[in-house]
Amino acid sequence: MSNLPPSLVDKTVAVLGGTGPQGRGLARRFAAAGLPVVIGSRSAERAAATAEELAAATGGAVTGADNAGAATSGDIVVVAVPWDGHGELVAGLAGELAGKVVVDCVNPLGFDKQGAYALVVEEGSAAQQAQALLPDSTVVGAFHNVSAVKLEDPEVTSVDTDVLVLGDVREATDLVQDLCDTIPGVRGVYGGRLRNAHQVEALTANLISVNRRYKAHAGVRVTDI
Amino acid sequence: MSNLPPSLVDKTVAVLGGTGPQGRGLARRFAAAGLPVVIGSRSAERAAATAEELAAATGGAVTGADNAGAATSGDIVVVAVPWDGHGELVAGLAGELAGKVVVDCVNPLGFDKQGAYALVVEEGSAAQQAQALLPDSTVVGAFHNVSAVKLEDPEVTSVDTDVLVLGDVREATDLVQDLCDTIPGVRGVYGGRLRNAHQVEALTANLISVNRRYKAHAGVRVTDI
Repeated sequence: MSNLPPSLVDKTVAVLGGTGPQGRGLARRFAAAGLPVVIGSRSAERAAATAEELAAATGGAVTGADNAGAATSGDIVVVAVPWDGHGELVAGLAGELAGKVVVDCVNPLGFDKQGAYALVVEEGSAAQQAQALLPDSTVVGAFHNVSAVKLEDPEVTSVDTDVLVLGDVREATDLVQDLCDTIPGVRGVYGGRLRNAHQVEALTANLISVNRRYKAHAGVRVTDI
Repeated sequence: MSNLPPSLVDKTVAVLGGTGPQGRGLARRFAAAGLPVVIGSRSAERAAATAEELAAATGGAVTGADNAGAATSGDIVVVAVPWDGHGELVAGLAGELAGKVVVDCVNPLGFDKQGAYALVVEEGSAAQQAQALLPDSTVVGAFHNVSAVKLEDPEVTSVDTDVLVLGDVREATDLVQDLCDTIPGVRGVYGGRLRNAHQVEALTANLISVNRRYKAHAGVRVTDI
């Protein structure tokens, strides 16, 4: 626990959509880093089952709840739900999420036989949609481009990628950069304001193309910093 | 010259907008790699002056012409003009560019006191706009995120970045990946179809934010490939 930076001591991280691959992978890594984690899901039972698995796998403190319960418990709340239903979920939790840092890692993508492509989002990006629906929360975009396969693989001891962290409030982006840095190999890099979140979300479509072409689980590093 | 891959032997590269920082930087590197380069500019005189400088600096074969002349001379034509005027320039050279691989590296960005942001492009991206205006050319997107400062600095012997190469025709993206690889340190990586070019163009806004925050000239590497 002593490895946690001061900003994260005594902080509980909730992961909404924590039973999906991305949420489960992030929850696993946060738990392994010594952070108390609450898995959120539409089904409290499925959340509890995933929590039990992750607690056993990591030795960390992982519990499960429905999404509203997890949102209430978390000091930092990660939103890792599918894009379809993102707005509805977030809007319904505005009260629970008030005053908190909400980390949106949702990628609005479509898929057809030519692969993945970015969807047009009325608010500009999933992160901006969340901020519009959560006027009393501070939304930060992060973890868009991290391979769930790598996060979930216990044999991957170092996840070789940077995470671009997007937001308009320095204290919140600094906190989320610290959260990124708890995952071995990962570096949180400030990547600009929330208005520039769209392209980072959409870049996941390019990484899916890279993965197909090169048979990889690609990530992104920022050079010269 | 013998270091050139077979695909680039006897190929002339034209760089439209070759007197601006990005075009000048790319032209310098291509010339240094042994490729014959034609600098294009609205002003043939300014193109000739830049060409003379780059020939002296690199020992390469660099000549200058107006943009139409350069488009005619090039086997591969790089479009490195400002976004403002991009469509007009490209449309006016449709005849000269017919049958050629056109490499678009234009980033449609706006700037205000909060920094850079991505502009909405009716066709989706600059690259898609070019393809729509050049039905008889094969448009490939590339070189969006490469630091002009690094390209232009003769003391930078290795430009530490990958270049995401976007396009719908495999032969053309392979060729442009080879072109990327002529620049020391640079690796051309297939990054998806043209419909996914927008976010790569727009990512330059994020890198501008990174550069401000970290006092850097950031680039991007793709991991796990």
